[in-house]
Amino acid sequence: MTDFNFIKPLVQKNESKIILLVLDGLGGLPKNGKTELETAGKPNMNKILKSSSLGQMLPIASGITPGSGPGHLGLFGYDPQKYILGRGILEAIGINFKVQHGDLCTRINFATVDDKGNVTDRRAGRIPTELNKKLCARLGNIKLEDVDVFVEPVKEHRAAIIFRGQGLSDKLCETDPQKTGVPPIELKALDKDSQKSQKVVSDFFRQAKEILKDEHPANMIMFRGWANYVKIPSFNEVYGLKAAAVAGYPMYRGLAKLTGMDVIETESGIVPQTETLSRIYKDYDFFFVHIKYTDSAGEDGDFERKVKVIEEVDAHLPEILKLNPDVFVVTGDHSTPAVYKAHSWHPIPALLKSKWVRPGGHSNFCESECVVGSLGTFKSKELMSLILAHAGRLSKFGA
Amino acid sequence: MTDFNFIKPLVQKNESKIILLVLDGLGGLPKNGKTELETAGKPNMNKILKSSSLGQMLPIASGITPGSGPGHLGLFGYDPQKYILGRGILEAIGINFKVQHGDLCTRINFATVDDKGNVTDRRAGRIPTELNKKLCARLGNIKLEDVDVFVEPVKEHRAAIIFRGQGLSDKLCETDPQKTGVPPIELKALDKDSQKSQKVVSDFFRQAKEILKDEHPANMIMFRGWANYVKIPSFNEVYGLKAAAVAGYPMYRGLAKLTGMDVIETESGIVPQTETLSRIYKDYDFFFVHIKYTDSAGEDGDFERKVKVIEEVDAHLPEILKLNPDVFVVTGDHSTPAVYKAHSWHPIPALLKSKWVRPGGHSNFCESECVVGSLGTFKSKELMSLILAHAGRLSKFGA
Repeated sequence: MTDFNFIKPLVQKNESKIILLVLDGLGGLPKNGKTELETAGKPNMNKILKSSSLGQMLPIASGITPGSGPGHLGLFGYDPQKYILGRGILEAIGINFKVQHGDLCTRINFATVDDKGNVTDRRAGRIPTELNKKLCARLGNIKLEDVDVFVEPVKEHRAAIIFRGQGLSDKLCETDPQKTGVPPIELKALDKDSQKSQKVVSDFFRQAKEILKDEHPANMIMFRGWANYVKIPSFNEVYGLKAAAVAGYPMYRGLAKLTGMDVIETESGIVPQTETLSRIYKDYDFFFVHIKYTDSAGEDGDFERKVKVIEEVDAHLPEILKLNPDVFVVTGDHSTPAVYKAHSWHPIPALLKSKWVRPGGHSNFCESECVVGSLGTFKSKELMSLILAHAGRLSKFGA
Repeated sequence: MTDFNFIKPLVQKNESKIILLVLDGLGGLPKNGKTELETAGKPNMNKILKSSSLGQMLPIASGITPGSGPGHLGLFGYDPQKYILGRGILEAIGINFKVQHGDLCTRINFATVDDKGNVTDRRAGRIPTELNKKLCARLGNIKLEDVDVFVEPVKEHRAAIIFRGQGLSDKLCETDPQKTGVPPIELKALDKDSQKSQKVVSDFFRQAKEILKDEHPANMIMFRGWANYVKIPSFNEVYGLKAAAVAGYPMYRGLAKLTGMDVIETESGIVPQTETLSRIYKDYDFFFVHIKYTDSAGEDGDFERKVKVIEEVDAHLPEILKLNPDVFVVTGDHSTPAVYKAHSWHPIPALLKSKWVRPGGHSNFCESECVVGSLGTFKSKELMSLILAHAGRLSKFGA
């Protein structure tokens, strides 16, 4: 959906139910001639092809590989090139921190510097997370004029800092020099509007150095990426949908929360997530179900494990379909081909089941069939309007 | 065509002839496994597939169902999200009223109110059109300061009013309360620029009430939708085409007129419209031929009748092809699947015959073949540049 001002007046409510099943990193590349999805035995997905349309989605634009943030924002209908969630924000929401409109977020690394102030270890020897927590607690006591500061441990040497106050713009440089033997880069404002931020953060940094000066190896912090959180319109506000997220991993729970979805407590895995989905099914219109393990297997380069995750999900599909949603979608947020061992730019296969589809006579849900599916090739951000249309939730545009 | 500033400098004239045959609501959905187009016997359309490209068109954007106005504007290359023709304008052009740039148009209903001023019938018992005409004639005599007013009967309780004057902005509220037992909503300006409109229309309304006060049941009018007419660039101006519309229904004749086409008098139906087309063929470059009955059958949920209309059109295709146009297109303005009984968002099948196509080895002109046609999936507004290109009417962009 490109333009909420365009779509909002068309939205109409009804009793329909929508399930969006996201297999993270679903799209693949062939190994021995077949992709993961082509290799997987998935009788249940294939059984619903006669009442489904297929298509392939570009997560962002041709050739662009998305991170998890833009990948999911696209799926949820937010233009990922307009709604930018910087690294600092994703780090913060990934640890369940409740970011607010206007917050200035950053990732930091604890690092080691020598007597001359030159960086000797950019990760402070990957200090234990326990020590990280203690150091963050001490840094969290720093007082700043007019501005609240939250210092949140993430893992090992990584933490997130959130500055909360008026007029904290995010055009600041990073201070990690990306190499050792040189001092951290001096914090600078990159535009006029960020001069207040520069002053506030420099004050924080001065105090932080003082607190850490006798620590070893974590006697320094380096700022890695700045981002303002700009509130995004909620799912309910834009689509008139009461939405729930059935996701186990913090990052995806956080992303769902940003869009105003209720995030349901659940274990990770197709079995517990299906149980959770069934339990809350009567209470919501829209369900985002996020399966992480396809992506993890892809990132690990484990083709067979990715195939197996797809097969496991397929085996439990009947329990989801028993709920009889009006629109049921199976897709991914991006491709993570096991042979590529990373997120990629390749289009994502998508299946949309509803009463109102043009099925294409397909016998296998896979990348090559999706290319010739009746939904054609489209951008992830358009998926939500297709879903709403098939659910009878969009009225006619113009007379 | 999104951007006339881009296309206009590329346009070059030649002697080519173009026929755009629009079967309204052509796209369908399967019943017993086949769509209307898949079911219809259409030997003549299929015979020209070897010299045609196929594709599928999104009328507006993914999931968006268009009304006839935006559907046709898209076909004619006008961005339907930019050139908005409100209901009031379509009502006015549908009855052949010549709207002018700046006109403020509205639909009205005649209604009934009781002694307390509460609405008892929002349609005044659907008064006969004859009475409607008489009442409109009386309301048309109302005099306003600086502003001309035209009150035009449509049908039964419906009429159109056009206010013509300087600075009449259309940000006014509707006054139909959408229920009975309450008074009509008070007319309000929704922004500063519409204060003059509010004053003018309120003056009109005061006089109208006085005129209607002793009528029964039509003793009230209610405003339903306001729209300014903003002149759109003409077909000739943008494409250098002398264009004619061979359409029987007022709405489509009106739409064609807005784009500057000459609207030819004709009966509705493939036989009289083909005769009209042949008669004027030597006088124009571009011919918009509009067949209404595919849409009517679809709206009525009559799958078989829609099939039959397609077959009738096909039977008369040789008479059109005999004219030997350089570019011949068969498509629709949107889908109206008979099983859906309404306009829908599904892509529209499109066939483009010319000397310069990449034919796809197709044997049947239908939705599923169009998905894999060489034109791919594209937006309706892009059709005109494809047509111009295949007609040799677009020069190279850049050196």
